[in-house]
Order: sequence, then structure tokens, then C-alpha cells
Amino acid sequence: MSVDAILTRIDQELPAATERLLELLRIKSISTDPAFKADCDAAADWLVANLQEFGVEAEKRQTPGHPMVVGHVGDGGPHLLFYGHYDVQPVDPLNLWDRDPFDPQVEDTPAGQVIRGRGASDDKGQLMTFIEALRAWKAVKGDWPCRITFFLEGEEESGSPSLVPFMKENAEELKTDLALICDTGLFESRTPAIVTMLRGLLGEELTITAPDKDLHSGMYGGIAINPIRVLSRIVASLHDDQGHITVPEFYDGVQELPDEIEAQWQGLAFDHAGFLGDVGLSTPAGEQDRMPIEMIWSRPTCDVNGIWGGYNGDGFKTVLPSMAHAKISFRLVAGQDPHAIRASFRAMVEGMLPPDCTATWKDHGASSASSAATDAPAFDAARRALSEEWGIPAAYVGCGGSIPIAGHFQKILGTEPMLVGFGKDNDQIHSPNEKYDMESFHKGIRSWARILDAIT
Amino acid sequence: MSVDAILTRIDQELPAATERLLELLRIKSISTDPAFKADCDAAADWLVANLQEFGVEAEKRQTPGHPMVVGHVGDGGPHLLFYGHYDVQPVDPLNLWDRDPFDPQVEDTPAGQVIRGRGASDDKGQLMTFIEALRAWKAVKGDWPCRITFFLEGEEESGSPSLVPFMKENAEELKTDLALICDTGLFESRTPAIVTMLRGLLGEELTITAPDKDLHSGMYGGIAINPIRVLSRIVASLHDDQGHITVPEFYDGVQELPDEIEAQWQGLAFDHAGFLGDVGLSTPAGEQDRMPIEMIWSRPTCDVNGIWGGYNGDGFKTVLPSMAHAKISFRLVAGQDPHAIRASFRAMVEGMLPPDCTATWKDHGASSASSAATDAPAFDAARRALSEEWGIPAAYVGCGGSIPIAGHFQKILGTEPMLVGFGKDNDQIHSPNEKYDMESFHKGIRSWARILDAIT
Repeated sequence: MSVDAILTRIDQELPAATERLLELLRIKSISTDPAFKADCDAAADWLVANLQEFGVEAEKRQTPGHPMVVGHVGDGGPHLLFYGHYDVQPVDPLNLWDRDPFDPQVEDTPAGQVIRGRGASDDKGQLMTFIEALRAWKAVKGDWPCRITFFLEGEEESGSPSLVPFMKENAEELKTDLALICDTGLFESRTPAIVTMLRGLLGEELTITAPDKDLHSGMYGGIAINPIRVLSRIVASLHDDQGHITVPEFYDGVQELPDEIEAQWQGLAFDHAGFLGDVGLSTPAGEQDRMPIEMIWSRPTCDVNGIWGGYNGDGFKTVLPSMAHAKISFRLVAGQDPHAIRASFRAMVEGMLPPDCTATWKDHGASSASSAATDAPAFDAARRALSEEWGIPAAYVGCGGSIPIAGHFQKILGTEPMLVGFGKDNDQIHSPNEKYDMESFHKGIRSWARILDAIT
Repeated sequence: MSVDAILTRIDQELPAATERLLELLRIKSISTDPAFKADCDAAADWLVANLQEFGVEAEKRQTPGHPMVVGHVGDGGPHLLFYGHYDVQPVDPLNLWDRDPFDPQVEDTPAGQVIRGRGASDDKGQLMTFIEALRAWKAVKGDWPCRITFFLEGEEESGSPSLVPFMKENAEELKTDLALICDTGLFESRTPAIVTMLRGLLGEELTITAPDKDLHSGMYGGIAINPIRVLSRIVASLHDDQGHITVPEFYDGVQELPDEIEAQWQGLAFDHAGFLGDVGLSTPAGEQDRMPIEMIWSRPTCDVNGIWGGYNGDGFKTVLPSMAHAKISFRLVAGQDPHAIRASFRAMVEGMLPPDCTATWKDHGASSASSAATDAPAFDAARRALSEEWGIPAAYVGCGGSIPIAGHFQKILGTEPMLVGFGKDNDQIHSPNEKYDMESFHKGIRSWARILDAIT
């Protein structure tokens, strides 16, 4: 029996699979906000029940944060692990959503059907592609393709504080031949892709304190130092006029792109005008001496993800605030040491402080960049399976985002990660009106069936 | 009958006067936030009833915003106007208050009794000093010292949008020989003062828009321009390394301090170390080539009163936001044209925008600086009365804050303003834990009785 019967079953089951995904999307599993703790727990319970329904021995495993969902099936053949995360990003600004982010629905759009709601693409829709593929496989074949371990996390959007301790404590259980990770996208929304270069992430929260209380800018303006002015100067100095990052020793260890990769990337003919045009931009704003595709895949970056201080309500308040804050992140590439960069960044900021100002810090995690060992045979098998499903040759690509789990599999478990996903550039993940194309969901499920068939 | 009988009456009435002030402080008349519209209305009603109680013909007069309270008494002698405002600042950050800001009370402190609550000093406590003085005068003498018009506003903390139209429409009613304004403080918390130089205020809200939606910094970081980076660069460039403001033509028309005023201010021996030390600072942060007292009284300044963009909740969100915002104000001195400076500032910002970024503006008001005609005999009489009450020679001083009403009296009504108030530097107006010293309240009431006696 070929994989065709499973693919047919997947086509027939699509409406039921969509209903199951909508159920999961209704659960408000925002991991970064403690107000949604019970919802994260409910999402884990839902996944356990869903997996058990078609025979997976799944259970919820407590951590100091949100629970993990772990499950096992099969016993012969290679031992695969599947990773996804059930937590989602916050939904603010809520007023920019066209619908309740947790009342998902299938919408008809000029570009085809989409599943709209927070987490539809990142990562609930993606993780369900694998689960649905395995459900169909079991229904058609009555058995499993090989030994498979599920490992589903609930803290990916909040720095995964429990992940490494859990992996270390359960290393024997989670150590497998290959880890399949579904949290990435197609290349330019059409070419199937296996991500083989991932950036690391360093997150910092900086608070500048100047006067010890909020002041009246009429009484103190002009003589008292304003922490917003100090913070702005620091933020403004993070990039030079050419878009390079100014943190001392920041680029130490960063490698130039190998010639063959550079040639392959030039061959992809990345449409940066279209990529930027989708979000109302036209001009690449990164290092001016780099190709646009390098800016997003292989070069380290720095962004301010949040800034706040003083009065931001309606009207005007002539306050000279005591404090100003920023959340700042660095995307790191192979060769960069997150801990050395953290130290250098903090020292640079401390050195810029005028008299009477102090800097305090909140550590929001640090992960190194990673790259996959694409010479393993499974990579080639998966690439052929993806090419067949999508009718376009699959590509090995880089990824601007950070998926620290990939590095953890390598370092903690010695397991090679393979990152395959079906998101599109316009999915608006982390933004209002997040969606997942029905095509991504449907062909995603089919892709996993083909990959499982190819590598087992 | 000398003024002594009135002063005695004031001393006896202090507990009752304090109770009346506490009643007014319980009304949440935050003018800048539309949620408190009914409270502003209630504060106006309270004042009308309070004035009527001792014989003032007072009424609430509607405006497109919050109402004015206008009242009249007497008919002989000079015609005085008394101005104060019943609206207060917002109370955030609420968690830094030691008590509910609208549940005021009298507290015993090592430095004496204080009346604690939002508006205690700015400006409900201050405006009640005049009302209580007149109430005592009437009780003791059975008549009024002269013709007096009350003019109490409810929009001072939100840019006074209705003030100028109301003054123009009611110019005949409000035109008087002298306008007494009670919204300023003692000099260094001990020397009675008449403010004769007031800075103007220009308020702007700037929004930088870069991508047309919030983005994932992993996907777009390094290639998409971040509006927080753009805004920070603008804010950082507003001052040079010497603390001068860089807006082109900003200092056009600014006069050097006259020699005699400079000498008088040097004589005041302003304790800038103590002034800054009270708020946890030590180093004057303004123009490095100016005396500290010039920085706060006679030089124009620029402050960012609020900045926000991206994610500011718990945890971390790797968002690359679409927009970043700042509320920016300029304090202006005599000779500066607020409208020319607004145009120059906006042009400077527009000129700094990188490709794909736009700036949008919200106008939060503009007022010129003003200075009083201190050669009018009433000024000398008031200075003598204040010196007598406080036992320290009263001073003519500058004021960093902006009280646009002073300029409006001069320009619209041709009425000379006289600014007398009893606030202290540590009153924490516009901040958490605002208070008004019982000494300010008590001697403030007595001061007005003496001033009325001296100038009528």
C-alpha cells in the first residue's frame, strides 16, 4: 500500500481536522502573561486528549512554568521526535484585530481560504499538521510508521524557561534519531523549505532611573535629567549610519557566507521588494553593505521590541518621569557568544550613563545560533518528499527567527533537528489578524505523510 | 477695625476650612481623561455651592469642555479677579501612592501637618486659600473688601481648550483692574514670592509609522526599519552634548537676563544642590553654560513627557512594531514664537525621517511666555503684606512652569496678572503622594486677607 491511500484519507478528513484545529485555537494559551496560566493548562489537556483519541500514550507533565505534553507510539524503525508549541503570543493591540483573536474561523479571501485567529500559524496550526498526518496514517494502516515521541511545549513565546531543565531531566526519554520541528515557513510563501541555519536570540530589558520620583517638567525641566532622553540616546546609538551594530566586539566570530551558499541564495532570487512591499516598506534598513537576504538569514541584528516611559494616555501630562524602559533583542548567528555579547552590551550602556542615572536589567534569555547537519540521509529524503507534494523543488534556507529548541536538541540530546514548516510570509504571526492558509494546513498534513513515508 | 480680627477668625476656622478642602479633594476631577467628565462637573457644582453659601453670586457656565465657575461680589473700590483651577492631574502610576489619591487626609509628619491627596497643592488647596480668606472677611466685616470676580477653570491640566474662547465671549464681564492667580509656590519652600516671569508651553505628540503592521522581529528584523529606532534618534538629537536644544531658530528672540535681575537672582543664592538632592539628583542637566536658576526660570527647555511603542507587558515579545509615539513639550521664554517653533520642530523631524517612515502630529497647545508689570502699586502692596505674614521679605521670582492664563489676561482683557501662591518644592504636584502643607494652607489664607487689606 503506497502513501496515496493516506493522502486520500487526509483529503477526506480535512473538514474534521479543521474543526479540531479551531477547537484548539479557542483556548487562550498566552504563555507570557500570568493571567492566562489556566488557559495554557487547558491547551495541554486538550492536546493530551486529542493524541489519546487515536492511540498515542500521551500525558501532561508539570514544570515550574506551563506543562509539557509528552507522548509515545510505535516501536520499530528509526526513532523520531516531533516538536511543536501550543502557547501563543499576546494579542495586543486588540483594536487592530478584525475579529476576536480567540474566536477563530475559516474565511474565504481572494487568495483562498484562511484559518484566522491567534496561533493559527504560530504554532497551533503547524503542530496539528503533524498530528493529523499521523492520525490519518494510523486510520489507514492500523499501525505507526515507526517509533515516534511527541514533545509539545507551552512556553516557546515566553523564552522557554522550563525547557532545558526538562530536557536534561528526561534526556533518556527524549533522545531520538531525528527531531522534526514544525515552526517555520515556506520560502517566499511558495517554495517548500527545510531551514538549516537558525539565528540565536538574546533578550534584555533595560530600565533607566534618573530622578527618584516623577517630577513636574515646569518645575524641574531644564535642570533635571530626563531618563527618556538618556534611553533614547542609548537606543539611537545601537546602530551606526550604515546600519551596523555598535556594541563592542559584537561581530567577533561572525563568519562570511561560504561561496556555495552565497551562490545558492543568489539563485533563489529573493524578492526583497515584494517581501518589504507586503508590509508597506521599500528600503532594506539593515547593514548597507549586505544583500537583503543576508540581513534576514545570516547576519546578526538588534531590535527594540518595546519602549515606554512617562505619560502615554489621552491628552497631555507635563511629567518628567523617574524611569524609562526598553525591551531590546539581538538575533545572533553562528560564532557569536550570547553571554559575551550581553556583557559587552551592558558595559556599553553603563558607560553611556550621565551623572545621577542608573541602569537596571532584566535577563530575557540567551540562545546561540545553530545549523543543521544536512548530510544525514533523512534530509535528502524529506527534500524529495516536499518537492513532490508542492510541485516545486524544496530548498535549504536560513531563518531570521530564533528557534532555540534546535540547538538544545543538538547540545543536550545529541539529536539532529530538522525544521520543516508551512507558514507564509503574510501570516501576520505575532501581529493582529494572524492567519494560516488552508493550503498550508492541508498540504502541510500531506507533506508530513510523505516525509514519514520517505524516511521510514 | 484692622485686619487682625479677620486673621483671628481665619485661625479659628482652620479646622472647618480643612474639612471643606478635603470634600473638594474627594472629587476625581481629572480633566485630561474623558472618563472623569462627570467628576469635573461635580467639582464645579461643589464650588458654586461653596461660594453661594457665603453670599457670592456664583454659577456654572458651560463650555465645549469642562465648565467654568464664575461669581461676583461687591461693588466699590478696585475690581479684582481671582483665578484658580479645580481640575487635577492623572494619578498614574497608582502603585506608587501610599494611599488612595482621592481619599485625602491630614497627616502628621516630622515636618508638620500635611494635607495629602491629588490636587491638594495643584490647585484645589491653593484656590481655597483665597475663597477661605474672603469667607472670613465677610463673616467678620459683614461686607466685601471691594468688587471681586471669581473665575475658576476646569481644564488647566489639559491645555485649557475652552479658556480663550470663553474669555473672548465674556470679556466685558471678566475685564478687571488686576487678576490674582493662585497657582505658584514659595521660593525654596520658605520665601513668599510673586512670580513675575512665566515660561510658555508648546505641546506636541509625534507618531512615527514604519511598517504598516506589527511584524515578527525574527522574520523582519535587520531588513525592516524599526520606528522605535527612528523615534529614539529624533529624541536623542533634540539636545546637543552641551544641553542646548537643536531645533533650528529655537533660540531666536531669546533675551539675555538683564544685569539687575541677574544680580538679584545671584543674591537669592539658589540652592541647586538641595533642589536636585530632594529628587535624588546632583548634577544640573540643562545648558552647561548657564546658572542653574536660569535653567529653571529664564531659559527655554525641551522635555519628552512620554514615549511608547511595541510591547511593554510582562515577559518578552519579539515584535517589530508598526508605530512608536512620543509626547514632547517645549517651555518657552519671552521673545520666542510658539508657532514658529512648532513649524521649525516639525520640519526638523520630517527632515530626519528615513525612507518608508512617516510622522503624524497631534497639537497639544501653544502659549507664549509672559512677564508682569511690577511697577503697578498693587505689586508693592502685596509684597509688603506677604513679607509681614511670613516674616521674610517677599521676592519677585521667575517660574519654570507655564501658566498661560497670565498671558491671556494681558492680551485678551488688558488686565495685569499677579501670581501669588504658597506651594512648596516638595509638594509632589503631578506625582504620586501630592500634598499641601497645613502651613501653606493656613498662612496662605492669612496672606490673602492681608493682601486684600493692603490693596483695597
